[in-house]
Amino acid sequence: MTSYPQLSAQERQEEYRRLQAEYEALKSRGVKLNMARGKPGKTQLDMVSDLFDLMRSPEEYVSDGVDVRNYGELSGLPAAKHLFADILGCRPQEVFVGGNASLQLMYDTISKAYTHGLLHSPRPWCREEKVKWLCPAPGYDRHFKVTESFGFELITIPMTPEGPDMDAVEAAITDPAVKGMWNVPKYSNPDGIIYSQETIRRIASMKPAAPDFLLMWDNAYCIHEFEGDFVPFPDILSECAKYGNADMVFEFASTSKITLPGAGVSCFACSEANMAYMEELIGVQAISFDKVNQQRHVLYLKDKAHTLDLMKRHAAILGPKFRCVLDMLQEQIDPLDIAQWQRPKGGYFISFNAMPGTAKRVLALCKEAGVTMTGAGATFPYGKDPQDSNIRIAPSLPPVEELRQAMEIFCVCVKLAALEKLGV
Amino acid sequence: MTSYPQLSAQERQEEYRRLQAEYEALKSRGVKLNMARGKPGKTQLDMVSDLFDLMRSPEEYVSDGVDVRNYGELSGLPAAKHLFADILGCRPQEVFVGGNASLQLMYDTISKAYTHGLLHSPRPWCREEKVKWLCPAPGYDRHFKVTESFGFELITIPMTPEGPDMDAVEAAITDPAVKGMWNVPKYSNPDGIIYSQETIRRIASMKPAAPDFLLMWDNAYCIHEFEGDFVPFPDILSECAKYGNADMVFEFASTSKITLPGAGVSCFACSEANMAYMEELIGVQAISFDKVNQQRHVLYLKDKAHTLDLMKRHAAILGPKFRCVLDMLQEQIDPLDIAQWQRPKGGYFISFNAMPGTAKRVLALCKEAGVTMTGAGATFPYGKDPQDSNIRIAPSLPPVEELRQAMEIFCVCVKLAALEKLGV
Repeated sequence: MTSYPQLSAQERQEEYRRLQAEYEALKSRGVKLNMARGKPGKTQLDMVSDLFDLMRSPEEYVSDGVDVRNYGELSGLPAAKHLFADILGCRPQEVFVGGNASLQLMYDTISKAYTHGLLHSPRPWCREEKVKWLCPAPGYDRHFKVTESFGFELITIPMTPEGPDMDAVEAAITDPAVKGMWNVPKYSNPDGIIYSQETIRRIASMKPAAPDFLLMWDNAYCIHEFEGDFVPFPDILSECAKYGNADMVFEFASTSKITLPGAGVSCFACSEANMAYMEELIGVQAISFDKVNQQRHVLYLKDKAHTLDLMKRHAAILGPKFRCVLDMLQEQIDPLDIAQWQRPKGGYFISFNAMPGTAKRVLALCKEAGVTMTGAGATFPYGKDPQDSNIRIAPSLPPVEELRQAMEIFCVCVKLAALEKLGV
Repeated sequence: MTSYPQLSAQERQEEYRRLQAEYEALKSRGVKLNMARGKPGKTQLDMVSDLFDLMRSPEEYVSDGVDVRNYGELSGLPAAKHLFADILGCRPQEVFVGGNASLQLMYDTISKAYTHGLLHSPRPWCREEKVKWLCPAPGYDRHFKVTESFGFELITIPMTPEGPDMDAVEAAITDPAVKGMWNVPKYSNPDGIIYSQETIRRIASMKPAAPDFLLMWDNAYCIHEFEGDFVPFPDILSECAKYGNADMVFEFASTSKITLPGAGVSCFACSEANMAYMEELIGVQAISFDKVNQQRHVLYLKDKAHTLDLMKRHAAILGPKFRCVLDMLQEQIDPLDIAQWQRPKGGYFISFNAMPGTAKRVLALCKEAGVTMTGAGATFPYGKDPQDSNIRIAPSLPPVEELRQAMEIFCVCVKLAALEKLGV
């Protein structure tokens, strides 16, 4: 295999015809495979379903004297706060334990900023003339959609191997209309990047012009290594506090990819001043979240050490899937000089940069051959990738054998689209 | 016992001194009893906790081909929609099954009207100069708080034995700033009133000036009889549709008082046009709600008939508690001509109207003697009862023996406050 850009026009044509035949052959298999979302696979679900064997004896209904089956404890069971604080490295009183989804808590935080304002807001954001929002990209499509849905202007911040381009961030936040920023700081979605210490320091010490700047810190993959040991990561709450920014940050996490997706427990963590303010607002909306499920998770996960053991067992399932994808890319795409990608050690995605101008075409070809991927552009604000290059690969759902088939198709599509771009 | 208003000044003084002594004696018992909220008692929780024995075999993880343990099915499991449709008398496609609390769904509906607008809104409500809201009172304090928290002007609508005073409602809705109305149509909180057929007809056929008028129909006690058989109740969705108002109403319900408070399943029901609109908005906020708990409830409750059997068992626990309260009021207060109250056959409350100007005093005396009740005024908008008369009694939590003690104290306090008002 030779670098495609170095092929002659005739060689490209020959390669293209060969690949077309291969593509037709693959298509005729009639596969139907889905790598669109970071959904855990069935083996992972089966592995944790002994979660349902808990809550069977009356003493398990009581936690710190609270009957978990009745109303009350708006901000969550103390034991559940301890568990998340242990995992995130913050203090239990900084943790609010919610329902089944951190996305809902994130949406709700921004919605409350919009309807009521945050602790340091001069006014609710719906009374602001304009709200702008920083979106490190490629990033998580659902994040971008939330802020888009409230009519904020989304500003793309380039991602670097160290995290968001902090020069760009520091320039942007001098505008008081810039009210916040999305982050997936560890194993970022989709790049799998871990923010560097220096990036975190610069973020924690920001001096935004907006007094109510909201640093959204979605620590979705805080303990989600699939390769190697747990990588310690700073507690963003104390980092921000160190620089006088205690009230700037809200951190989010959930057990969606520790126990069950959409049936786990979520939390947010923030300063005690923010907590008092938010509890007042959330107290109008809710009496309490599902404490039975909180208790089930406390009993099942126990503490950070025990949870990390469970994550090793998830890694044993996920690791081979990621290696399958990375090995096939290495073998089939790397020599051709037509794409780059990250090699993450945790998280749920591989961020693949196809030859600029070909991502949409690659995914259309994939779809035609029965492989569904995250839509092209999804990883950018407004769903528009200016380079039409980034593709998010989600290897977690299919078994390795199906993944191999899907990647075979994907690699052929990447090559076809590149050759079309180079001219055939 | 004689009617207090007919006592001479001296008789009142004698009675007052006698009651003071009785009050001091009761106080010295040092009880600590809570009748503040409609919390089910421990016997009810124990009765349904075999709910936790479900979800133990792999075939229970799958519902209509959906693995309930993974992401997806934003609007809920089809089987859960069927269950709620069966109970509410609407169609499954009109049901959205949510998380653990209908209060959150209600808050969220109003929040979305505020941030994004409803299907027929000319603009989001945050862009309206003023939003007014109809509050039949006495009513549910948490309802009133939600609309108050968004800055709406709350308009009190008197309750009658037939439901809200519809003349007042029909007059109010000619104002286009009046955007909606709270309702607990069956066993209203706190009066325990069932809206009459005529009231429902007038509500369903309203012609509000606001094109996006939101009829909040909190059917919290739809199958919650504690005395006698299930009382059939019209499906408000088809009632509204009959009069061309299909998109005017959102109905809410939950299993909080069928299975577990705060750990059950909630739903809203609305027209299919509203459903399509709301799913679009909620799709930004959530991937899915807790389908494991939905499935648990489908397996446990089965259908309406089976759920009504369970409600009979709740009634066997609740009935004696309500009878204890009502009997003591009948015996100790009724002859004195100082108060009125409802005698409901379902729901969770008894609405007690003390002598005007004495509710706060009654509750202060209760508190001093160790009995916590819902705060005076709570059943009115802004927490202000213009008569200072209405007291919500919640008999569900304490065992009958404790309830008797609490009511002994309550009755003495009602008498003391009345005598003070009459002059002693």
